Amino acid sequence: MALIVAVDKPLSITTIQGICREADGIKTGLPTLVEAGTRWMLDAAKACKGIRVLDLKLADIGPVMVRTVEPFLGVYDTFIAHSFVGSKGALEDLKNEVERVGGRLVLVASMSHPGATEVYDESARHILSVIDKVDPWGLVAPATRPQIIEMLRRRYPRKAILSPGIGAQGAKPGEALCAGASYEIVGRRITGSPDPVGEARRVRVEQYEKLSNCKP
Amino acid sequence: MALIVAVDKPLSITTIQGICREADGIKTGLPTLVEAGTRWMLDAAKACKGIRVLDLKLADIGPVMVRTVEPFLGVYDTFIAHSFVGSKGALEDLKNEVERVGGRLVLVASMSHPGATEVYDESARHILSVIDKVDPWGLVAPATRPQIIEMLRRRYPRKAILSPGIGAQGAKPGEALCAGASYEIVGRRITGSPDPVGEARRVRVEQYEKLSNCKP
Repeated sequence: MALIVAVDKPLSITTIQGICREADGIKTGLPTLVEAGTRWMLDAAKACKGIRVLDLKLADIGPVMVRTVEPFLGVYDTFIAHSFVGSKGALEDLKNEVERVGGRLVLVASMSHPGATEVYDESARHILSVIDKVDPWGLVAPATRPQIIEMLRRRYPRKAILSPGIGAQGAKPGEALCAGASYEIVGRRITGSPDPVGEARRVRVEQYEKLSNCKP
Repeated sequence: MALIVAVDKPLSITTIQGICREADGIKTGLPTLVEAGTRWMLDAAKACKGIRVLDLKLADIGPVMVRTVEPFLGVYDTFIAHSFVGSKGALEDLKNEVERVGGRLVLVASMSHPGATEVYDESARHILSVIDKVDPWGLVAPATRPQIIEMLRRRYPRKAILSPGIGAQGAKPGEALCAGASYEIVGRRITGSPDPVGEARRVRVEQYEKLSNCKP
């Protein structure tokens, strides 16, 4: 199974250690940075043996994105940015900086909310061309739209695909894995549970059950 | 003249007060949030009588953007987000939340770096349609590309246009104003000066000189 837990609030470090024993890693984001601060973000990542994804949905010019990730390099190992900003003077700078210290870049290929159809989907051809050019380690694609995951998996057999949208947003554990995702990202269902570590374990079981019955 | 200073490092609160007497306001961003923390970001805005722009280049689903700005509402008055995430389930939620407390939304219409041509420009038609739908208070458009400012000014006579890219990125003070921008955003030239307040005053003088000689 392949589960990344979106730690969307400042859980205790002990809880994060427990989560990281059950799951493959954690992802933290901008609201938690604002609420808990850079120090907490670093402590959370240090508590986790697995994949540590910094999800600030970076979408700026190169120098600004590079300055933003600087304090996290070497502690977080995976960094999410928007393909929308393009390569030259933006993602190519970020990728060089992140990979210089052994980190990995993940680009948003598509989003899960209804507004994703207004511009992101309409620009799919240009988004894919940026992905080809930047050649990131991984992609983000929503579990709520498995046909997009299938398309990306066919096009990029060897890239990691990280898939949010499970639980609160509607997809069920295992559905994105069946479609070809490498990791499912689950947040509120786990972090909102009175027993986050046990809930992570239950999600894993559901992933396993679903994955044993993927439609061919 | 119309000048917003991009406070791109944690200057002293006294310096920020001085800058806000010379300029119309300040803009702070993600690298400074990471470096200095939410408390400093709030203190900086409280020290400023003018426009207080929070520039996190928000580009996520609605609930995440709303949670991100929550602690800043009522202290910052202007919030920058990316138009490419679309309205439904994203920018419409953010706009409602920001305007509920009298704040203003500003959408990125175009960017200044070479990579902006790879997707952002190619998607201009869809970006403009999101701007029409969301109807934000203002737009961001780069001083390095005055023809885009002119187009936006013709299309949106009453929206504020905030224009970065002056100084380090190549445009000269006043050029964006000549093209129709409402505010020029200047960062490193002012914050990197040994006398930031005096430098803000000098930028204003240059804006005035240029604006007196706009080509018709």
